[in-house]
Amino acid sequence: MYKVKIFVTLRESVIDPAGDAAMKELKRSEFPEVESLRIGKYIEVTMAKTDKNVEEAVQDMCRNLLVNTEVEDYRFEIEEVVAE
Amino acid sequence: MYKVKIFVTLRESVIDPAGDAAMKELKRSEFPEVESLRIGKYIEVTMAKTDKNVEEAVQDMCRNLLVNTEVEDYRFEIEEVVAE
Repeated sequence: MYKVKIFVTLRESVIDPAGDAAMKELKRSEFPEVESLRIGKYIEVTMAKTDKNVEEAVQDMCRNLLVNTEVEDYRFEIEEVVAE
Repeated sequence: MYKVKIFVTLRESVIDPAGDAAMKELKRSEFPEVESLRIGKYIEVTMAKTDKNVEEAVQDMCRNLLVNTEVEDYRFEIEEVVAE
């Protein structure tokens, strides 16, 4: 089995209204030291082992469904878990 | 300056409709090997250095604003960045 962690971030050129709102609220309250805040997605996937190349499969999953590659970047980590 | 990465995940007992929909679509298309998929948040924060304890400040930011601790868990990584 594989455990996959996918980190999806908005491109720097893309505005992030939710992140901006959170940043302003933090600055306004106790945390004026906050300089930037961006909210992305953290996706955890578990997958059975198959004959496929797992990296290619995750790339395809990201490009086809999980990531909007027009405005988002992504990276991922794959960990093989040996069943007990 | 600090770069902080915050990973926010839904508790296992909490349903994740967006994650379930993405999982079903992946299984139905090319990826029947997907066994679970959960969508959380990945928050990147930059903060100026202050006299405060940075770990405590990030804990407070998470508990007070960024995380719904009723249904979400979180962990974070703090990296100190030395300006050039």
